[in-house]
Amino acid sequence: MKYEFTPIGIIHSCFKEKFGIPRQPGLIPEALATLEIVPPFNRPEAFKALEGYSHIWINFVFHAALREQWKPMVRPPRLGGNQRVGVFASRSPFRPNPIGLSVVRLNEVKYNDKGVELRLSGIDLLDGTPVLDIKPYLPYADAIPDAHSGYAPGPPGQSITLTYSSQAEAWLGNVAAKQADHIRRLLRQVFENDPRPAYLKAGSAERKFGMSLYDFNVSWTVENNQVNITEIKHLSAPED
Amino acid sequence: MKYEFTPIGIIHSCFKEKFGIPRQPGLIPEALATLEIVPPFNRPEAFKALEGYSHIWINFVFHAALREQWKPMVRPPRLGGNQRVGVFASRSPFRPNPIGLSVVRLNEVKYNDKGVELRLSGIDLLDGTPVLDIKPYLPYADAIPDAHSGYAPGPPGQSITLTYSSQAEAWLGNVAAKQADHIRRLLRQVFENDPRPAYLKAGSAERKFGMSLYDFNVSWTVENNQVNITEIKHLSAPED
Repeated sequence: MKYEFTPIGIIHSCFKEKFGIPRQPGLIPEALATLEIVPPFNRPEAFKALEGYSHIWINFVFHAALREQWKPMVRPPRLGGNQRVGVFASRSPFRPNPIGLSVVRLNEVKYNDKGVELRLSGIDLLDGTPVLDIKPYLPYADAIPDAHSGYAPGPPGQSITLTYSSQAEAWLGNVAAKQADHIRRLLRQVFENDPRPAYLKAGSAERKFGMSLYDFNVSWTVENNQVNITEIKHLSAPED
Repeated sequence: MKYEFTPIGIIHSCFKEKFGIPRQPGLIPEALATLEIVPPFNRPEAFKALEGYSHIWINFVFHAALREQWKPMVRPPRLGGNQRVGVFASRSPFRPNPIGLSVVRLNEVKYNDKGVELRLSGIDLLDGTPVLDIKPYLPYADAIPDAHSGYAPGPPGQSITLTYSSQAEAWLGNVAAKQADHIRRLLRQVFENDPRPAYLKAGSAERKFGMSLYDFNVSWTVENNQVNITEIKHLSAPED
């Protein structure tokens, strides 16, 4: 028996590549996305009363992790990337049915000529993610604060020092003030969640990292908990 | 674009029909199920470290609610069954992609000759439900106790008085003592969540209701918050 599902929408996310995406939703409150509902699901009445909820569940397809074969064990970054657990004891995107589950903040239900858009934050979703379903978050059923959670008892965040090169400061100064503040907050939260793969954490002081967010690329170096943004560039205009 | 998924397992539940199933998981702690993992997913190593988690998410197919057409609005029982909201503002099983989401207690991961079985409680799942995926519950990401939740701010439970007919008492006396205690607790929790459809709540004092649980059928009457179990019978032996 197989079941076939058609996406009801698609995610337009600040995260344009896997690098920088937090391990779970809610860890980067500043991470924004729009969920564009596609025809024939973009009927305003299908969303009536959704605005009364602060959070929603998103069931989505790990579209960048689709592969033919599943593996029974994975190496979670949480365990340093060298210890194996069962794929069903993890939230790895590489699983028999690559269905993802995230609870995100619902900031706005927006109706326009094209139909319906949901404005979301606290996301951990890659740009282009196909969405299969959304459901309202019900704290009386879904919130179990004292659940015991094996090898991941708490959030992986850490405190960091963040500095910007003069080029990066100048680039931010050229962006509209409101957007620049958002970008600074987003970058701080991304680095507090240490986006580096576990195998690159040791001895990475000499390494220059890069990641895409929205329509720009950020380059940085990191030593201990000291992150320096060396350069920010628009993706569409490499010379700017 | 469509996505096709194959169930990893099937639910064997105390709930043999829709009647009696609570509206959300966790409302009936005594509700038990076994999730039988089916080949080729029943490999012990795929579950390694899962026993460290007290709760898991289950993504499943609402197999008894499959229909060709979706409707943009539904009438939630929570609103008395006569007020409409958008299907995406509800957790109705009748939705464009009939995927369900429940957090349940994981009591045991059991390995045997056939493979893997998960013993669950606090379920809201119909017997025979196909399961697409399970994931560990992470309280630091999933628990948002102060989320605002529109028209469903708290659990729908109520206090009731429960009495048993002499036939029902005798039937329970014939069942093994441990099982009888479980059945009494289960029935109390089912009735505290009022299994009646909203449209039957008014003027149902004259009506005799019936529901199947495990391999037996329960008949009862209800007036205000007074429930009387009139009869319990095995399904397989209608004359007993």
